[in-house]
Amino acid sequence: MSIKSRAAVAFGPNQPLQIVEVDVEPPKKGEVLVRIVATGVCHTDAFTLSGDDPEGIFPSILGHEGGGIVEAVGEGVTSLAVGDHVIPLYTAECRECKFCKSGKTNLCQAVRATQGKGLMPDGTTRFSYQGQPIYHYMGTSTFSEYTVVPEISLAKIDKDAPLDKVCLLGCGVTTGIGAVLNTAKVEEGASVAIFGLGGIGLAAIIGAKMAKAGRIIAVDINPAKFDIARKLGATDFVNPKDHDKPIQDVIVDLTDGGVDYSFECVGNVKLMRAALECCHKGWGESTIIGVAGAGQEISTRPFQLVTGRVWRGSAFGGVKGRTELPSYVQKAQKGEIPLDDFITHTMPLEDINKAFDLMHEGKSIRTVIHF
Amino acid sequence: MSIKSRAAVAFGPNQPLQIVEVDVEPPKKGEVLVRIVATGVCHTDAFTLSGDDPEGIFPSILGHEGGGIVEAVGEGVTSLAVGDHVIPLYTAECRECKFCKSGKTNLCQAVRATQGKGLMPDGTTRFSYQGQPIYHYMGTSTFSEYTVVPEISLAKIDKDAPLDKVCLLGCGVTTGIGAVLNTAKVEEGASVAIFGLGGIGLAAIIGAKMAKAGRIIAVDINPAKFDIARKLGATDFVNPKDHDKPIQDVIVDLTDGGVDYSFECVGNVKLMRAALECCHKGWGESTIIGVAGAGQEISTRPFQLVTGRVWRGSAFGGVKGRTELPSYVQKAQKGEIPLDDFITHTMPLEDINKAFDLMHEGKSIRTVIHF
Repeated sequence: MSIKSRAAVAFGPNQPLQIVEVDVEPPKKGEVLVRIVATGVCHTDAFTLSGDDPEGIFPSILGHEGGGIVEAVGEGVTSLAVGDHVIPLYTAECRECKFCKSGKTNLCQAVRATQGKGLMPDGTTRFSYQGQPIYHYMGTSTFSEYTVVPEISLAKIDKDAPLDKVCLLGCGVTTGIGAVLNTAKVEEGASVAIFGLGGIGLAAIIGAKMAKAGRIIAVDINPAKFDIARKLGATDFVNPKDHDKPIQDVIVDLTDGGVDYSFECVGNVKLMRAALECCHKGWGESTIIGVAGAGQEISTRPFQLVTGRVWRGSAFGGVKGRTELPSYVQKAQKGEIPLDDFITHTMPLEDINKAFDLMHEGKSIRTVIHF
Repeated sequence: MSIKSRAAVAFGPNQPLQIVEVDVEPPKKGEVLVRIVATGVCHTDAFTLSGDDPEGIFPSILGHEGGGIVEAVGEGVTSLAVGDHVIPLYTAECRECKFCKSGKTNLCQAVRATQGKGLMPDGTTRFSYQGQPIYHYMGTSTFSEYTVVPEISLAKIDKDAPLDKVCLLGCGVTTGIGAVLNTAKVEEGASVAIFGLGGIGLAAIIGAKMAKAGRIIAVDINPAKFDIARKLGATDFVNPKDHDKPIQDVIVDLTDGGVDYSFECVGNVKLMRAALECCHKGWGESTIIGVAGAGQEISTRPFQLVTGRVWRGSAFGGVKGRTELPSYVQKAQKGEIPLDDFITHTMPLEDINKAFDLMHEGKSIRTVIHF
C-alpha cells in the first residue's frame, strides 16, 4: 500500500521546487524503501532543474546526496534489513555486470538505462502526485522523505555515523577525494592544481592532502574561497582575474614547467583545456570531474598529448559505492574528512529553494536539508 | 678540417631534394661524426618538406631514420668510439635532465631548444654548401653520408645487426611498437584497434601481437594494406569506406562496447576523435601517435572521458633511445620484429625523390636509401 511522503517536486524546468505530499508505492522485488534523514543540494540538481540537462525529465523528485534508514525491503533483498543506515548511490554496484567484473571501473551499468529515464529497473515509477506519475532522478530522489531505491544502489554504513553529515559522501565529497586517490592516484610529493573551489574542488584538496601532495594550487575567480581552501590544505592560490595571460601559463611559470596532476571541478570546457595544458610535459595528468553543458566539447592541440600529458575523467571519484563508500564514512568518523567544513547552511525541506539560491550566489559550499 | 659529403638537401619547402656535395665540419665537444650507411624515408620528412611544419627550416638536410658507423668523436665523448655502430636519435637521452631523471618519460630536453632551430647544442651548424650554412634536422640529418650528432643522441647497437634494416628502428617501427608496449601497456587478451596501416600502424600491430592482444582490429581506407596487416597479426579489418555510420560506432558494435586500446597512426584529428570514441566505456585508452598539421585541434565531449576513457599520446613509443633501443635491435635480430616486411623498396641516395613519390602514392611502406 502506498504511503504519503513530503517531497520537493520539480514540476518543470526552471521553476521553483514545490513542497507537496506525494504517494510512494512499496518497494518491489530487489528494491528498498528508505526514509531520508538528510540530503545535500548539489550543482547537478541545479543543472537538471535549469532545463539544460538533456536527460532531465519532469515532473521529478531531484536529490542525490542523501543519508537515510531502511524502512522496508522488497522481495529478494538480502544485503539490507529494516533499520540499516544507508547512502543512496547514483552509480550502482551490482557486482555481476561486465563493468563491475572488469576490476577497472566503478561505472556499473546494471540499472543505467532505466535510471536515465527516471524509472526503477522494472520500467515504472514508485512516485505519484494526485494520481499522476512523478519520475525518479539519478536513481536516488533524496528530496523526498521516503524514496525507493534498488538494493544495488545503496551503501550500508555504520549506524554511529551522523546521517546529516555523511550524506555529503553520497556525491561531491567522495567525488573530489576519489578523483585524486582512485582515478589520478596522486603520489606523495606531487604538485597538484585544482580548478574551482566548490564542494568537489574543496574535496579534491582534501584528497590531495591525504595523498601527501607536496604542493596544492587552488584556482578560483572568487577569492573568498581561498580561506577554506587554505584550511583544508591548499598551499598556493591563483585567481585568474589577477592575470593577463592564460591561466595555464601562469601555473606553468609558478611550477617550473607545470603540475604533476590537475583537476577540473567546474564543468567549464575552456577550464578543462587550461587544466590539461598546465600539466607538466612528459607526465602531467589532468582529470575532468566537472559536468559540462549539453553539446559542449573540449579541445586542445594533439601535441599536448603526444608530448606526454594524459587526459582522463572521473565519475563519483572512481569509487565503488557498496564496497568502498563505507570506508569513506569511517574516515569521516575519524576526522580525516572534515565534513563540517563543507556544511555552511542547514535548513528544513520547506526552505529548499533558498538552498539553490545560496548555491547560485556562491554563498554556500553545501546546504544540508534536514527532514 | 671539413670533409665532403654527398647529401640530399632541402633548399626550400615543396621543392625536390637536390643531391649535392656539402661540407661537414669535424665534431666539436660532445659531438660525433657518423657515416650513414642507410636511412629510411618517413612521413615526417615529407611533412617538413611540404612546408606545413611550423618548425621547418631551410635549407636543411632532412632524414631521421638512419643507421651508421662512428667515424670520429669530439672532445669529451666517452660512451662511443670510432667504429661503433649507432642509430641517431631525434629524442636524445642525456640521463641528467629533469625529464630523464623523472623515470616517467623519454622526452629528454637537453638539446631540444637548439635541435628545434636546426642547430647543434652550441648554436651553430656543421653543414655548409658553397659557403652558406645548411641546417640540421631533428638532430639527425640522415640524408647525408656524413652527419654530426650529439653523443647523447646516439644509441650504440650490436655490430652484427644489418644497418640497412635496423635503421628503421630509428623512428617508425620503434614508435609503433613502443606506443603499444611502453605507453599503453596493452595486456594479454586485450582488444586493440589500430587506425592507419602505414609503417607506424603496422609496427603497432607487431607490438599488439608481442603483447598477446586477443583481438587486433586494423583500420584503413586502403584495403591493399590488409594483407600485410594480417601477416603481422591483425585479426579484423575495417575499411571506413564500407560503412555509412561513423567508424567509432562500427568498432563499438564489432566489439560489444568498444576496444580496450586504440592507436591513431595517421595524424588526422578527426580520426583521433574516432579512435578515442571507439574505446570501451569505463576503461578504454586511446593513444595518439600520428602528428597532426600545424594548428589543428582534437575535440570530443568531456563525457567521453568522465565515463572512463583515457586520452594519451606517445612520442618515439616512449622509448629511451640509448637505454632501450639496443634491445629493440636484438629483438629484430631474433626475428621478433620482422623488419623485412616493412622494406618494400631500396634505392641509392640519388633516387631519394622517388622514395617520397612512392610514399605519397601509398605504394611503399618504407623505402630504405643505401649510401
